Amino acid sequence: MESVNTTSDRPCDPRCLVKSEAGISEGNVGQGVVDFPVAVVLPAAGSGERMGLSTPKQFCTFLNRPLISFTIETFERIPWIETIVVVVAKESHDQMLHIIDRFHHTKVKVVEGGATRHRSIFNGLQAFSESMEGPSPLPRPKVVIIHDAVRPFVEEDFLLKITLAAKEQGASGAIRPLVSTVIATTSEGYLDHSLERTKYRASEMPQGFLYDIIFQAYQRCSEFDFEFGTECLHLALQYSGTNAKLIEGPQTLWKVTYKRDLAAAECVIKETLSLSACLISGTMAETVELASKLQKNLAAHSMTLDLHPFVKGNDELLSKTRNFIQISARRESLSEITEMVKVLEEMNHALLYPVVIIWVHLCMSEEPFHRQNPDELSSIMDISMKAKQRNILLYGIEVIHSKIPELWERSVERLSEITAALIRDRNPAFTGQLLQA
Amino acid sequence: MESVNTTSDRPCDPRCLVKSEAGISEGNVGQGVVDFPVAVVLPAAGSGERMGLSTPKQFCTFLNRPLISFTIETFERIPWIETIVVVVAKESHDQMLHIIDRFHHTKVKVVEGGATRHRSIFNGLQAFSESMEGPSPLPRPKVVIIHDAVRPFVEEDFLLKITLAAKEQGASGAIRPLVSTVIATTSEGYLDHSLERTKYRASEMPQGFLYDIIFQAYQRCSEFDFEFGTECLHLALQYSGTNAKLIEGPQTLWKVTYKRDLAAAECVIKETLSLSACLISGTMAETVELASKLQKNLAAHSMTLDLHPFVKGNDELLSKTRNFIQISARRESLSEITEMVKVLEEMNHALLYPVVIIWVHLCMSEEPFHRQNPDELSSIMDISMKAKQRNILLYGIEVIHSKIPELWERSVERLSEITAALIRDRNPAFTGQLLQA
Repeated sequence: MESVNTTSDRPCDPRCLVKSEAGISEGNVGQGVVDFPVAVVLPAAGSGERMGLSTPKQFCTFLNRPLISFTIETFERIPWIETIVVVVAKESHDQMLHIIDRFHHTKVKVVEGGATRHRSIFNGLQAFSESMEGPSPLPRPKVVIIHDAVRPFVEEDFLLKITLAAKEQGASGAIRPLVSTVIATTSEGYLDHSLERTKYRASEMPQGFLYDIIFQAYQRCSEFDFEFGTECLHLALQYSGTNAKLIEGPQTLWKVTYKRDLAAAECVIKETLSLSACLISGTMAETVELASKLQKNLAAHSMTLDLHPFVKGNDELLSKTRNFIQISARRESLSEITEMVKVLEEMNHALLYPVVIIWVHLCMSEEPFHRQNPDELSSIMDISMKAKQRNILLYGIEVIHSKIPELWERSVERLSEITAALIRDRNPAFTGQLLQA
Repeated sequence: MESVNTTSDRPCDPRCLVKSEAGISEGNVGQGVVDFPVAVVLPAAGSGERMGLSTPKQFCTFLNRPLISFTIETFERIPWIETIVVVVAKESHDQMLHIIDRFHHTKVKVVEGGATRHRSIFNGLQAFSESMEGPSPLPRPKVVIIHDAVRPFVEEDFLLKITLAAKEQGASGAIRPLVSTVIATTSEGYLDHSLERTKYRASEMPQGFLYDIIFQAYQRCSEFDFEFGTECLHLALQYSGTNAKLIEGPQTLWKVTYKRDLAAAECVIKETLSLSACLISGTMAETVELASKLQKNLAAHSMTLDLHPFVKGNDELLSKTRNFIQISARRESLSEITEMVKVLEEMNHALLYPVVIIWVHLCMSEEPFHRQNPDELSSIMDISMKAKQRNILLYGIEVIHSKIPELWERSVERLSEITAALIRDRNPAFTGQLLQA
């Protein structure tokens, strides 16, 4: 068992993902309200057979990061959650420690899992218990939240509801309406009857418990429960006599179950990361004009561009931004990009999410930049190769400032389309390219 | 009501999507076995509120095509299915006719929907009934399959099982294991009890029925059923006394319910379209060598490249291929690309799925192509703009044949990465670009 990692140099904008498909979660909703210790147990010892992949789904990677790190981040963001116990299979132990180290997770303790889900959760709960052998236990929480490692999008306001209901009622759980009709089958494989959909719900995660109630339930439950059970709410009812309060959760609670769900999760995150960008226009009339056209066009792609003449020295702005578009007519502006990459690297800004920088070169002559400056072309490639190692994705676009209005309009349209696509896709394969608008 | 469209100039490889996440479906599995008429009813009159979108989900578009067209295509591919009745809301009627026309669907009849799902299905079934007012009915099928417009990945072998079971037992339906525990709630919102997961199943689509059985059930069912029911199997049991045979279906039967599911569906299709490509190497030693390196590297991206020195005149090959990579050291090869685009356009090859063409220019000198041939650069852009209108996505990549082994190896690596990304992403925003490997 590892001690809790205490480094804390995470990026400054961990809330970039609070906006999600289901709406916007308010920041700090629980602070002041939750005046008792809360911990999380994340069972992550499954093998992910259903996924049809060799890697368990919680360790599948997108945007350069394993799924479980996204889920951990969700809980780490919340100030009133103290500890996250992640329960992994023995063979994943080192991998999990590596993930914690690489992504600077600070509230996590790793515990070894058991052969079934219930055994793994019990192992996680035991980390808080004095009866444990080995190192001294973690401080016992008042409320413990049990969640799935493969549901990365749970939001703070919903966790708060679950936590407060658990504190008051002893147990609480997320429910969702049934998506399909549930039917009972005969032993020969025929329809026996269908359940009335309105009377039943799907039981989802997270669930919350007074620590003493769920720990007692696990201490009392049978071998059969440990082997074949899946539902913590059921144990709390049967062995601690607690009827859980059920709370309808948002659809963002969904569980990454199949390979296609990974694609969906990646898409949700990419969409969230693409909602806004910082547009650096300089002060030249032509670049400011182009910036304003781009701003208008990208609004149609649901992207909000904040205009700034410069960003140099504005570290607060840099640390809040995931996407930068720099428009310039001067070839020297490439060295400003180099400088920006350096600052972003130093603040470790792209640790958790890739950062996109698009260098837009406005050519005032009809002779394109890449023909006048063959060396700069390879210099974009060189800067971008180094930046990519630090999760910073640099792309170039050149636009010729045509005197023919139709050509100019077409270029601005194309610039808008390419810019939106680069930000949305965050594709590392195209970094270092100088595209033509 | 519209008559069935009888044009038949669909592309020659409609089976490109039979490989799916769940495995490979065998072609023509049902031919000869199904010696009775089979029709499909696709209710598609829903408003898609759950999606959080203004467009009903069945009309949401990806890869330039609405979801419902993918589902229709799945059934049209199957030779033993005669007619597909699509039931749409009155306000979507013209849009549906436009989709049928644009994507050359040939087996579809459009019927107007009712206020609820059951009313819409009944309207669909009535299209085969003599009691209908208006135009003469469609030939009455022996078996009717009822499916959802928003489950595009149903496979022929599974449809065959459903169809044969319906013929024998009167009714049949797809089931899947429950993903979540199902719980009963008290009226105050507390847990009452949880169901034993092994005894219940989720009822999914498709379902199959002897036409007379399901039509009779709908004729007899109550207003309450029409308003609040959702389950066709239940009606067949209650009003025709038929216990449906339940068959476990593959996970590819999933339903596009939320916005994220559209992303997942797009990803499944893109992945399927990216499994293989045709690599045109010419006969020059250097291009053949590069082709063979590329073939090896893309195998690591799960992409199979079939090598051909030329494809000109080989229309069968062209019509079977979704991705082309042409490697050439001659600048004239661009005119061969123009020729290929023309042939593909004439065969309407990209009607249903976008086709990717990557023109790889191997520069034998250290002086890159784009600097020697500024006109060809804009010519790639021009060809690609026209091709894009016909769903053909053309990209260029230039590779300098460096004499320095490390540089050459790095270029080949980059070429492989860019090629794989272009084929997988099929992004229209980057067509016409000449990328640097």
